[in-house]
Amino acid sequence: MIKILAKTKEELLTNLTIDELQAHPSIDWYWIDFYNPTEQEQKALEEKFDFHPLAVEDCLTQGQRAKFEIYDEHYFLVYYALHKEELENLEVSAFIGDNFVVTYHVDKLKSVARVANLVEKDPNIVENDPWEIIYELLDHTVDEYFPTLYQLEDQIDDIEDNAKNETMDELMRNLYDIRSDLSRMRRILNPMRDLIYRIMSTNALKEKEQVRYFNDIYDHLLNMIEIMNASRDLSNDIRESFMSINSDRMNSIMFTLTLMSAIFLPLTFIAGLYGMNFSYMPELAGKYNYFIVLGIMIGLVGVMVFAFYKMGWFKYRKGPKL
Amino acid sequence: MIKILAKTKEELLTNLTIDELQAHPSIDWYWIDFYNPTEQEQKALEEKFDFHPLAVEDCLTQGQRAKFEIYDEHYFLVYYALHKEELENLEVSAFIGDNFVVTYHVDKLKSVARVANLVEKDPNIVENDPWEIIYELLDHTVDEYFPTLYQLEDQIDDIEDNAKNETMDELMRNLYDIRSDLSRMRRILNPMRDLIYRIMSTNALKEKEQVRYFNDIYDHLLNMIEIMNASRDLSNDIRESFMSINSDRMNSIMFTLTLMSAIFLPLTFIAGLYGMNFSYMPELAGKYNYFIVLGIMIGLVGVMVFAFYKMGWFKYRKGPKL
Amino acid sequence: MIKILAKTKEELLTNLTIDELQAHPSIDWYWIDFYNPTEQEQKALEEKFDFHPLAVEDCLTQGQRAKFEIYDEHYFLVYYALHKEELENLEVSAFIGDNFVVTYHVDKLKSVARVANLVEKDPNIVENDPWEIIYELLDHTVDEYFPTLYQLEDQIDDIEDNAKNETMDELMRNLYDIRSDLSRMRRILNPMRDLIYRIMSTNALKEKEQVRYFNDIYDHLLNMIEIMNASRDLSNDIRESFMSINSDRMNSIMFTLTLMSAIFLPLTFIAGLYGMNFSYMPELAGKYNYFIVLGIMIGLVGVMVFAFYKMGWFKYRKGPKL
Amino acid sequence: MIKILAKTKEELLTNLTIDELQAHPSIDWYWIDFYNPTEQEQKALEEKFDFHPLAVEDCLTQGQRAKFEIYDEHYFLVYYALHKEELENLEVSAFIGDNFVVTYHVDKLKSVARVANLVEKDPNIVENDPWEIIYELLDHTVDEYFPTLYQLEDQIDDIEDNAKNETMDELMRNLYDIRSDLSRMRRILNPMRDLIYRIMSTNALKEKEQVRYFNDIYDHLLNMIEIMNASRDLSNDIRESFMSINSDRMNSIMFTLTLMSAIFLPLTFIAGLYGMNFSYMPELAGKYNYFIVLGIMIGLVGVMVFAFYKMGWFKYRKGPKL
Amino acid sequence: MIKILAKTKEELLTNLTIDELQAHPSIDWYWIDFYNPTEQEQKALEEKFDFHPLAVEDCLTQGQRAKFEIYDEHYFLVYYALHKEELENLEVSAFIGDNFVVTYHVDKLKSVARVANLVEKDPNIVENDPWEIIYELLDHTVDEYFPTLYQLEDQIDDIEDNAKNETMDELMRNLYDIRSDLSRMRRILNPMRDLIYRIMSTNALKEKEQVRYFNDIYDHLLNMIEIMNASRDLSNDIRESFMSINSDRMNSIMFTLTLMSAIFLPLTFIAGLYGMNFSYMPELAGKYNYFIVLGIMIGLVGVMVFAFYKMGWFKYRKGPKL
Ligand SMILES: [Mg+2]
Ligand SMILES: [Mg+2]
Ligand SMILES: [Mg+2]
Ligand SMILES: [Mg+2]
Ligand SMILES: [Mg+2]
Ligand SMILES: [Mg+2]
Ligand SMILES: [Mg+2]
Ligand SMILES: [Mg+2]
Ligand SMILES: [Mg+2]
Ligand SMILES: [Mg+2]
Ligand SMILES: [Mg+2]
Ligand SMILES: [Mg+2]
Ligand SMILES: [Mg+2]
Ligand SMILES: [Mg+2]
Ligand SMILES: [Mg+2]
Ligand SMILES: [Mg+2]
Ligand SMILES: [Mg+2]
Ligand SMILES: [Mg+2]
Ligand SMILES: [Mg+2]
Ligand SMILES: [Mg+2]
Ligand SMILES: [Mg+2]
Ligand SMILES: [Mg+2]
Ligand SMILES: [Mg+2]
Ligand SMILES: [Mg+2]
Ligand SMILES: [Mg+2]
Ligand SMILES: [Mg+2]
Ligand SMILES: [Mg+2]
Ligand SMILES: [Mg+2]
Ligand SMILES: [Mg+2]
Ligand SMILES: [Mg+2]
Ligand SMILES: [Mg+2]
Repeated sequence: MIKILAKTKEELLTNLTIDELQAHPSIDWYWIDFYNPTEQEQKALEEKFDFHPLAVEDCLTQGQRAKFEIYDEHYFLVYYALHKEELENLEVSAFIGDNFVVTYHVDKLKSVARVANLVEKDPNIVENDPWEIIYELLDHTVDEYFPTLYQLEDQIDDIEDNAKNETMDELMRNLYDIRSDLSRMRRILNPMRDLIYRIMSTNALKEKEQVRYFNDIYDHLLNMIEIMNASRDLSNDIRESFMSINSDRMNSIMFTLTLMSAIFLPLTFIAGLYGMNFSYMPELAGKYNYFIVLGIMIGLVGVMVFAFYKMGWFKYRKGPKL
Repeated sequence: MIKILAKTKEELLTNLTIDELQAHPSIDWYWIDFYNPTEQEQKALEEKFDFHPLAVEDCLTQGQRAKFEIYDEHYFLVYYALHKEELENLEVSAFIGDNFVVTYHVDKLKSVARVANLVEKDPNIVENDPWEIIYELLDHTVDEYFPTLYQLEDQIDDIEDNAKNETMDELMRNLYDIRSDLSRMRRILNPMRDLIYRIMSTNALKEKEQVRYFNDIYDHLLNMIEIMNASRDLSNDIRESFMSINSDRMNSIMFTLTLMSAIFLPLTFIAGLYGMNFSYMPELAGKYNYFIVLGIMIGLVGVMVFAFYKMGWFKYRKGPKL
Repeated sequence: MIKILAKTKEELLTNLTIDELQAHPSIDWYWIDFYNPTEQEQKALEEKFDFHPLAVEDCLTQGQRAKFEIYDEHYFLVYYALHKEELENLEVSAFIGDNFVVTYHVDKLKSVARVANLVEKDPNIVENDPWEIIYELLDHTVDEYFPTLYQLEDQIDDIEDNAKNETMDELMRNLYDIRSDLSRMRRILNPMRDLIYRIMSTNALKEKEQVRYFNDIYDHLLNMIEIMNASRDLSNDIRESFMSINSDRMNSIMFTLTLMSAIFLPLTFIAGLYGMNFSYMPELAGKYNYFIVLGIMIGLVGVMVFAFYKMGWFKYRKGPKL
Repeated sequence: MIKILAKTKEELLTNLTIDELQAHPSIDWYWIDFYNPTEQEQKALEEKFDFHPLAVEDCLTQGQRAKFEIYDEHYFLVYYALHKEELENLEVSAFIGDNFVVTYHVDKLKSVARVANLVEKDPNIVENDPWEIIYELLDHTVDEYFPTLYQLEDQIDDIEDNAKNETMDELMRNLYDIRSDLSRMRRILNPMRDLIYRIMSTNALKEKEQVRYFNDIYDHLLNMIEIMNASRDLSNDIRESFMSINSDRMNSIMFTLTLMSAIFLPLTFIAGLYGMNFSYMPELAGKYNYFIVLGIMIGLVGVMVFAFYKMGWFKYRKGPKL
Repeated sequence: MIKILAKTKEELLTNLTIDELQAHPSIDWYWIDFYNPTEQEQKALEEKFDFHPLAVEDCLTQGQRAKFEIYDEHYFLVYYALHKEELENLEVSAFIGDNFVVTYHVDKLKSVARVANLVEKDPNIVENDPWEIIYELLDHTVDEYFPTLYQLEDQIDDIEDNAKNETMDELMRNLYDIRSDLSRMRRILNPMRDLIYRIMSTNALKEKEQVRYFNDIYDHLLNMIEIMNASRDLSNDIRESFMSINSDRMNSIMFTLTLMSAIFLPLTFIAGLYGMNFSYMPELAGKYNYFIVLGIMIGLVGVMVFAFYKMGWFKYRKGPKL
């Protein structure tokens, strides 16, 4: 689908075709948006404009890096919007000339619709500078990143406090999912930061005041990257803490098992011993021998508890001193 | 709440309104502090001053990065005070002009109160240069970081020596808490260092002597960052040491369990064997068979202990040689 | 094997020998490709051209770094094609002069065949600039990297979801294999990126337009490196998550073992106790003593379950709160 | 305590007071050393010299960073001597002017005593340049680091070979102690390296030859830092190797336990089965049933050993192939 | 031992003493090699030449960094040959002047002998430029590194495939040894790379062609460093994979143990129960009670296997899905 906004001195034209637009004698500026274009529309992009073939190729191929390139007749931009559920990047390409912007994207994008709306309501905000449209697009796009990032922060907070009372296994899976999401965010945020920086450091933007506005987007991106990195560090620390607490639990379980085994194995053996059916076992005869053996068992428990105490086992739950 | 300090050649005025201040014919400099302002006061900030809209937006929005920006008519600054209990950053925004400082913060801040006090007592320390007020604010703010940092250092020392005789589990949780706190400190200290550096490296400060005083703050921040990084490394080393000592304990517990099981499992089996009630078990008859079986059991223990000795089990507690 | 393409003003000659080529009066440009050359052909390379001995040495020795060197009379290039199965680099050396390209490689390379084809079909694409041949070679070579990289991405996805329902042991081996492959890719991609950058940043390429085309290759490499790094991070996260889930499973297994042992060890001991054959064991006599002991056993189980409950064992499967 | 060395053209004066020194008409250069000064002496430092207040503040406050600052009237230096037992840094501050050095330290320092000795014996080594005194102080201080570093190297070697035949627990504690010590060394060596570099790269040192001598100290520091980093890496590798060997030991212990349990649990159960006292258990009657059961037990062991063999258990001690 | 090679216009003199050499009227260039010199020879080095005392000190002291220093009258170089068995660096110092090279080393070095041989056979390769001798020394020295590095690569390959069918313990020790060796190599290769770079980037080498030859050595070093880093990464990956496979084995062993214990503990308890000798145990009487109990036992096994199946235990060997 192609949507065209063209400004003459008098008015904003919204229902021209490309051919009419190019034939029109007095256009101040125009913005053409290609959204999920048909093959025919793609062909129009290739043929009816004077764009550099390398730029057109990148525009038509998905999977490009976010980037800013300067050609002789126009600038070329690839930036990323965010698919909120999948945290995938949605590529947008833009050709920017002295008096035009041509944008191209396969996916439906709220930010584009909203900026188009804005421009239609008040075409004067463009001030005859197509970079104003790019600013609005980038500003809206970047602002849309925030909710996702805050949601990830909240999810980490939930894991930290185990707010949902989940099992270790579930917590670990959640941590993994969050880390994957943070990695996806990083693959969007870092290239966007570099992209904005690149736009500001070339002299594409002519007005110092405009640089300030792009710098505000840059500032937002730096802020998000700090949040993202902090979240990443935190998720790391949480995982390692979970692991070490788990390993301590294991110790505690094993300790209980060993203690009980160590006490009952010898006792059970003695009981088994006097359960044997040998015809001649002198100990079995005496009247008090049963009680003597019972006494020996109790004594054995005492000796073992004392030995364990001496070996420091009952302080085992205490942490070490380094 | 708005607090205004305004200096004329003769005296320090402390009870003007913004309108009176702006109408006053002979003000050398003034400082307006917005503390948790009402909506009306926020509106005053937006409308009665000539501040850049991007700066005003950042000022009114919480969650900004610490930063220093140069606008045509004024400087704009965001810096972080420290919430001592939560280790959260408390944002302060400041607009600095040739003869004014306007500060803005939502949270109650001791440093602002103290500097205001200082200025009221001796307005001459400002020397007609509003940067002096900023210096005092930053100096007091940064000095307030130290106790928190020293406290974290002490907590790590306590964990290292297990001074409170805690369980491994508690130690691990404490380490996690300290690491979270150190991360929070890092997210305050590093931006503050960059902020001070940025102030010094632009030519906002006109006097070489003033740069030296800001450099002193910078020096404090570098010092704190070194302490913080050292603490972070130490906490890492402690955790890994705890983990490896724990894993060694586990080995030692398992070794005891295995040794006892290995000795008593066969013995108990033999005892069980001769506890069976088969009508014809020739071994049960002979007079000495019971003692022979006892002897075999003792011999078996000997053989097993010898086997374990040969397999190097009794050197198991010794560490390896690489 | 040596293949020669030589262009005169009129035509493309394809069956000259080196000697004929060098004697020919009117060659615009030529490309000689040495593929797995005989000793005699190697000697021709050393003797019939005026190449710098260090460059020739590097060309004839396998195991060179990808690099770009500037000699007085020619440029010298080593780049890597990809062996798809082994992910090994296949070295290609190239000498580039004002009107010639000499390439040298031991392994059979599709990209070389394809570019030769291209040139034979339309010799004019070279435009009398041998760097065009290099561009085509590098472009084809780099494009051949993509399928391998995408395949690695898919393999990681399979491991993440355990799509083939493999054992942990198999997953770990697969992860190791993928990581080895990614390391091999990195040892190809990073040097290639540096190589292309080096070519662009010296002034070997005379036309700005040509730089753009090399920059397109560079862009592809950056894209692949991002994919590769993301894959590497992901494989790391997967491994650590697998490890922690495994460790949690272990805990759960040990917990079951300990619980059952803790309950049955005392019971079995008591049973053994009253299985002893002492002639005088008063407890054995009474009519209800058997049921009393049964009751005691049941009570003991109750007490132990209660104790475990109090010790929080039945919440053990729940993850910790930090 | 204050120690003053003052050089006139003729002689070295060693028993002047500060006041006498400042009143003296013909001093070529002087060196005042404040060692653990009384409050009165501290006051003298503050009042009788023309030092910058920020420098004096840093001098009087402990816990400064090693640093080099340039003031209008003098240089200011903070460097670290090493407390050999605690591996703590001992701060030394120095004010350096055209014809004076003032040093200040709280702790007793051998290096200061030795340099004072040197100067008293031959005042001419100072060559009227106070930087010569600083060079000697730094050179002696840095040379004193070496024995400590070599000792740490030896301790790591001992741990590697377990030369003292210690338990894993002791080895882990030793490793932790050494790593702490290395961290402390790093917090001394790195700042010192930066300090010396900073001195050389400003033009405080006037003679190229003097720069060479400071560069020799710098070279020593780089050497030590390499040793330190190598030691750190080595200690890391040792710890991880110990951990993995430990984990392998655990496997081997658990394997033995499981093997024995797996064999004896069923056997003991069978023995228990025929130890039951049911009045009617037909198997107990037959003459050969006891031997049949014995045979079954032996057969069962055979079957289990065969099953374990088939499951690859007896190759368990072999490492994996990746 | 001192070996002197001196070139006059006519011939190469090989049996001069230092004094004769210095008295000789027409020497084009000379090379003196000090190999494990006596004290007297060391004194000659200190006294008979005009070398800077700092350079002489470094030369006479072992344990220097590889480095390149520029003095007024000469250059000074420390480089590392490789001790093949111990992978220790063997220091070589060199003083380089306009018409001389003086080398100094404690250890016997093949490379020095070979270069001396080369020069004696054809003194003209020096072309009156002592840097040619240094080039040959460095080239031979660096070429000698390769076999050791390739050997380490092969050892890692062997460990990866467990080619020698070693135990995990042995594999871990081998990995540790290889990592130590790689660390030692790194402490030789990295400084050498920096050294060669430093020589090239100062203007010690006068001819562009000579820089190319040093660059060839540099290229070799970069190549080796890449191999070394790849080996290091690989050894890391192998260790972590071994650890995780080991941990999986542990899980599998523990699972078997727990399964068998869980099945036999209750059975053995029941058997023990009916092995008690109470005079009144009604269950023992009935004719079919024994078979009923047997049936109960079999039923219990069934119930437990079903419970384990429900708890997913029999899928335990399967890896997780993330
Ligand atoms: Mg695209
Ligand atoms: Mg915005
Ligand atoms: Mg906005
Ligand atoms: Mg929280
Ligand atoms: Mg200690
Ligand atoms: Mg903003
Ligand atoms: Mg704000
Ligand atoms: Mg301060
Ligand atoms: Mg202060
Ligand atoms: Mg301590
Ligand atoms: Mg200070
Ligand atoms: Mg060894
Ligand atoms: Mg080659
Ligand atoms: Mg391509
Ligand atoms: Mg192409
Ligand atoms: Mg997936
Ligand atoms: Mg492209
Ligand atoms: Mg907590
Ligand atoms: Mg001090
Ligand atoms: Mg020294
Ligand atoms: Mg010295
Ligand atoms: Mg050793
Ligand atoms: Mg030296
Ligand atoms: Mg494999
Ligand atoms: Mg030496
Ligand atoms: Mg070589
Ligand atoms: Mg050579
Ligand atoms: Mg291989
Ligand atoms: Mg292999
Ligand atoms: Mg070469
Ligand atoms: Mg998932």
